Amino acid sequence: MNEEKAASHPFAETTISTQPVFSGRMISLEISTVRLPDGRTATREIVRHPGAVGVLALHGGRMIAVEQYRKPLERVQLEIPAGKLDPGESPEAAALRELEEETGFRAGSVRHLLSFSTSPGFADEVLHLYFTDDVTPGGQRPDEDEFLSVELLTPEEAERALRDGRICDAKTMLALYAWKLYRLSGALTP
Amino acid sequence: MNEEKAASHPFAETTISTQPVFSGRMISLEISTVRLPDGRTATREIVRHPGAVGVLALHGGRMIAVEQYRKPLERVQLEIPAGKLDPGESPEAAALRELEEETGFRAGSVRHLLSFSTSPGFADEVLHLYFTDDVTPGGQRPDEDEFLSVELLTPEEAERALRDGRICDAKTMLALYAWKLYRLSGALTP
Repeated sequence: MNEEKAASHPFAETTISTQPVFSGRMISLEISTVRLPDGRTATREIVRHPGAVGVLALHGGRMIAVEQYRKPLERVQLEIPAGKLDPGESPEAAALRELEEETGFRAGSVRHLLSFSTSPGFADEVLHLYFTDDVTPGGQRPDEDEFLSVELLTPEEAERALRDGRICDAKTMLALYAWKLYRLSGALTP
Repeated sequence: MNEEKAASHPFAETTISTQPVFSGRMISLEISTVRLPDGRTATREIVRHPGAVGVLALHGGRMIAVEQYRKPLERVQLEIPAGKLDPGESPEAAALRELEEETGFRAGSVRHLLSFSTSPGFADEVLHLYFTDDVTPGGQRPDEDEFLSVELLTPEEAERALRDGRICDAKTMLALYAWKLYRLSGALTP
């Protein structure tokens, strides 16, 4: 959304100045000074992220999940296959690529379910969630700094992993809700 | 999780050194050099966040939502009431406080639904999601740099807001799934 369009909303915060703080391999950080709707100023800490994808992939009625160490949380988590967009890559291509790299499963097709901001208070990251039940097994090719193991979960196993706290991230919980709703009603989105 | 415990998992990444980059009002940023499971090293960009809460609050069968400008995304979004934890504050107290400050509604009680990491690849933020259908209307008291309007949505209006892209963040989509499942089956979690 451009600034003119943004400024047309009564709650819009227009940028007065932006200070770059950090530019890294995955994210960058900037501090913006903004004009509030009442004319006062405030600062906003903003993390820039290239965007991400996740895939709810079903094979023989089981959900494909990866266990992986998450350094920010200092723990392993069981998540749906996911990753960030490469430069110029479409979300759909990224979904197919991440599924295959992380799990070895190749999808014949994927269907877009939802796109959502993960932390709208401080980050611009948008994650695109896809669904497929059209997959064939193959060989894993994870990134060189990525260590993960693949698990295929029945609905009961997935629900237990949620209760036990092994599944504990937003995108995987959204995938579990989508899968549950799908089993109950045939719909994947609320 | 302490380092010894973390190091006990075969995928654990142990910290070699940490460089603080930024410390702000809402987040801080650090870069850690880590030892990978195969002995090589890698860097991890880590955003530290105090944690957050969100509330799926129903009043007369309608969901309480707030429209607010999200500077990182340069747009207004329709979200469930939410906010970050104050120092030393319990998630439950924060949920009650944010609901009342942002919407004026006071909850007699809240029920914990789910806690999840929002962006486990680069942030340690955990959001605690609560449910209540025990609320009484009152007056809004938003933060001084917060401008928002309150809407009460029927299920149909909420589903339309999702389709139209007005609802576009992870916690609010999780709340919509929980509410839908609740109407279909009486359960709030998958």
